[in-house]
Amino acid sequence: MTGSLVIAGLGPGAEALVTPEVSEALARATDVVGYIPYVARVPDRLGLVKHASDNRVELDRSRHALGLAAEGRAVVVVSSGDPGVFAMAAAVFEAVEAGPAAWRALDIRVLPGITAMLAAAARAGAPLGHDFCAINLSDNLKPWPLIERRLRLAAEADFAMAFYNPRSRSRPEGFARALEVLNEACGDARPVIFARAVSTSEEAIRVVPLPDCRPEMADMRTMVLVGSSATRIIARDGAPIVYTPRSAP
Amino acid sequence: MTGSLVIAGLGPGAEALVTPEVSEALARATDVVGYIPYVARVPDRLGLVKHASDNRVELDRSRHALGLAAEGRAVVVVSSGDPGVFAMAAAVFEAVEAGPAAWRALDIRVLPGITAMLAAAARAGAPLGHDFCAINLSDNLKPWPLIERRLRLAAEADFAMAFYNPRSRSRPEGFARALEVLNEACGDARPVIFARAVSTSEEAIRVVPLPDCRPEMADMRTMVLVGSSATRIIARDGAPIVYTPRSAP
Repeated sequence: MTGSLVIAGLGPGAEALVTPEVSEALARATDVVGYIPYVARVPDRLGLVKHASDNRVELDRSRHALGLAAEGRAVVVVSSGDPGVFAMAAAVFEAVEAGPAAWRALDIRVLPGITAMLAAAARAGAPLGHDFCAINLSDNLKPWPLIERRLRLAAEADFAMAFYNPRSRSRPEGFARALEVLNEACGDARPVIFARAVSTSEEAIRVVPLPDCRPEMADMRTMVLVGSSATRIIARDGAPIVYTPRSAP
Repeated sequence: MTGSLVIAGLGPGAEALVTPEVSEALARATDVVGYIPYVARVPDRLGLVKHASDNRVELDRSRHALGLAAEGRAVVVVSSGDPGVFAMAAAVFEAVEAGPAAWRALDIRVLPGITAMLAAAARAGAPLGHDFCAINLSDNLKPWPLIERRLRLAAEADFAMAFYNPRSRSRPEGFARALEVLNEACGDARPVIFARAVSTSEEAIRVVPLPDCRPEMADMRTMVLVGSSATRIIARDGAPIVYTPRSAP
């Protein structure tokens, strides 16, 4: 018997944003592997073994999951958002490439999920309604000068931008520097959206002109979206609508 | 009584990729508005009025939907993929901004969906596992020189790239030119993924080195993903795995 490995996206938090495809894979799993809070989202059931691990051990976790699948288990690696966007899928494939040949023969599937930037964008309106880019602001896995270079080129291309991992306790200065670079490179008051814990009970959305943004407006659970030069705000009672028109001059 | 307008993402095609949140909104709607094939995906039911319209009438469709909501109806505008990514949400907000003040007071919500690039990426592995951008290659709503400029800057930033609307019958030459620009700007044999009709019975995935790409490999139902300079291929029996590692030197 050959096992299987599914890398499944749980979406940003709400159960109503988990696709039926992912729910079905979880219902058939013998083993669920992932970061502690994501594994906790999967209901206990007889015959299901949960393997929860801490953050920043993505490669170890991947090897563990691949080993279980190679033993014949039906393994689901759970990821928040979409597994292919700054999440578990790339880590699993890094482990596959470096691992034993048998791992390549496994039945491995990635099940997409609602990634944080799209959940955040939906709450604000349609800020990513025209060309955009997604950048991981964490410098754990890449040098800071590369991040800065990408920010400048993204501004030059006039992309709207989505930032994952804008700010962590261990690297509070990175996001401050990113805001400086953006103010220099954009030179205008385009809207920035701080979307915290979208679709959970702690959700908070804030729209701030770029020059007024402060590093402490983001934390580890915040997605930051920056409009392009064309992004517009529709004022109204309550939260404004932020959207980027489909056309560009 | 005040109506409501929900702009809902149906995902790339398979019902297993429609979120429960969207299914629930459709179950409560009095009116469904959208492009013919998307409206056709919503099951008929007593009390539900379907308003299907042709492609390229997004603003008319938006005004129609807003008018119905203003009359007190519970309207769902259906969009394929995610409504905020090259789809209906920006069109609705363009209509809101230009329309009567009463439209701003409406209860308008965007419900995210699985966008085509993430469904396509999941099928291939994790080609968008590092920083990436999304570009609409259609020049219906923006001038071609802007598209070309963005392609060159995206290559310079070493983003992986996702292209929506790579090729249509009315503009067959645009994608050929895009491939020329990419070959010039990238200068290597990075993998390109042609993902057609993902999650439907007509799904076809093809991985081709950039220099071997031909315009006719894409049609209107194809998403094109281009790896970054770091994107890797894991060869194995069957389809290869394409992924972009999380780290960059």
